[in-house]
Amino acid sequence: MSDFVRIVEVGPRDGLQNEKAMVATADKIELIDRLSQTGLRSIEATSFVSPKWIPQLADAAEVFSAIARKPGVAYPVLVPNEQGYERARAVGAEEVAVFTAASEAFNRRNTNAGIDESIERFRPVLARAAADGVKVRGYVSTVLGCPYQGEVPVTDVVRVASRLHELGCYEISLGDTIGVGTPHKARAMLEAVAAEVPMPALAVHFHDTYGQALANILACLEAGVRVVDAAVSGTGGCPYAKGASGNVATEDVVYLLHGMGMQTGIDLPRLGETGRWLAGLLGRETGSKVAKALAAA
Amino acid sequence: MSDFVRIVEVGPRDGLQNEKAMVATADKIELIDRLSQTGLRSIEATSFVSPKWIPQLADAAEVFSAIARKPGVAYPVLVPNEQGYERARAVGAEEVAVFTAASEAFNRRNTNAGIDESIERFRPVLARAAADGVKVRGYVSTVLGCPYQGEVPVTDVVRVASRLHELGCYEISLGDTIGVGTPHKARAMLEAVAAEVPMPALAVHFHDTYGQALANILACLEAGVRVVDAAVSGTGGCPYAKGASGNVATEDVVYLLHGMGMQTGIDLPRLGETGRWLAGLLGRETGSKVAKALAAA
Repeated sequence: MSDFVRIVEVGPRDGLQNEKAMVATADKIELIDRLSQTGLRSIEATSFVSPKWIPQLADAAEVFSAIARKPGVAYPVLVPNEQGYERARAVGAEEVAVFTAASEAFNRRNTNAGIDESIERFRPVLARAAADGVKVRGYVSTVLGCPYQGEVPVTDVVRVASRLHELGCYEISLGDTIGVGTPHKARAMLEAVAAEVPMPALAVHFHDTYGQALANILACLEAGVRVVDAAVSGTGGCPYAKGASGNVATEDVVYLLHGMGMQTGIDLPRLGETGRWLAGLLGRETGSKVAKALAAA
Repeated sequence: MSDFVRIVEVGPRDGLQNEKAMVATADKIELIDRLSQTGLRSIEATSFVSPKWIPQLADAAEVFSAIARKPGVAYPVLVPNEQGYERARAVGAEEVAVFTAASEAFNRRNTNAGIDESIERFRPVLARAAADGVKVRGYVSTVLGCPYQGEVPVTDVVRVASRLHELGCYEISLGDTIGVGTPHKARAMLEAVAAEVPMPALAVHFHDTYGQALANILACLEAGVRVVDAAVSGTGGCPYAKGASGNVATEDVVYLLHGMGMQTGIDLPRLGETGRWLAGLLGRETGSKVAKALAAA
């Protein structure tokens, strides 16, 4: 099994869209440019979801146009539909991400559509992306629990992930949106999906709401996953539990991986500095324990 | 392998001794009495180390005399030497804990004695405890790294742990004092010790300085350990990295264990409330992500 783990840095998108503080466009650009210098290979830059829904990322086109895209680094952007896809392509996005939930209740609440209908809505995006040579990443959220329906059957996660893969997503990110999962459940879920979708096409995405993210990542690494989503400085929070912790901090994931002898290509002290700079912008402490310890040492 | 994990709550001792805020004697007593109502089986109550060294716990005798000791719950106290042992026994302690480090440099710096000499200093305590029918727990610190010498050879950890076990400690707690360990190293260290000391006589003690504690605990549970030290609300901090995180939060460990289908006998919501109350006393946020999430939900 490979010792290289690709980190997908989701701070500029998943992190910032769930922060109260509005970050200036110039600061978002600087954030992404700084991240590009840390050795990261994938940086999710922004979201072309309607500004009505995500005012924090209303400047998506400006941000994406201005960043210094480094060769060898992918800059996926979130798109909800064809309109978002067009806006992303207009500024030169070469990779996009689509999203749906494994929970029927979550989909209905958030998109006014069932799972199957929400997937059907992506079909035209996936068809156009295939024609344009654009890579598409797929997010499946609520894979270990839902704020509305509670338990989410693993069979639903498998079905949704398989469908996105069949429709052309090169990678499926399995997200514990509300951060309730624990290691055995996380591993069982991943293994069930991996029976239908090849493991190299799977990523894991943990929120640290209940502090379990690193333990869950460890369990999933042991099961063979080699792509992990994380957000520098642990930005984000949880819209379903105000005041709770956000995405797992990239710094802490990288420390874990390097400590286990795995490679990421990432310069950890530089990443920690970037995270502390970002926390300063957001007016709060870094959410990364590694960044705190490095600063204290 | 048993599904029951015994948590040794070290907040009132290891947590408070590393907090800046001084907690009133009455509040310490209330803390321990509250913890006694959560289902915990072991609560390290205080330390009879000289008040010159640990002013935070100068009221050890008053605290221990006043707590309501619940039948079935053990209340070990830390003792550094015979004098401490006598003070602890004078107020009725039935279990004590002794401590040394696996790092030669750490021992020399902190006790002005090498490892072997520091162990020899415990001999009289262990002899008297055996004669008095007092149980003795042994701590080995710096098992995964030392602030002075860096790497700590696993052979030193094995040697020190074995020696404490031979000398009569019924349980040896292996402590990553500076929280630098990662899961594979933690498991390898535990397994090396378990080749000499039976696994049921071993406990793990992780500080969360680099956010790795729960992942390390997971790795050690998989290797068979069934005793875990933790501090409610994640109190403590790290004397070698000011501003860094402290002990792993008991609430987060219990959430992990229950999520994996293991038993602890602990009432998690009640424990979380106690932790938030303690954080209030200390004038800071709880260090437990579970407690934050439960409060937000």
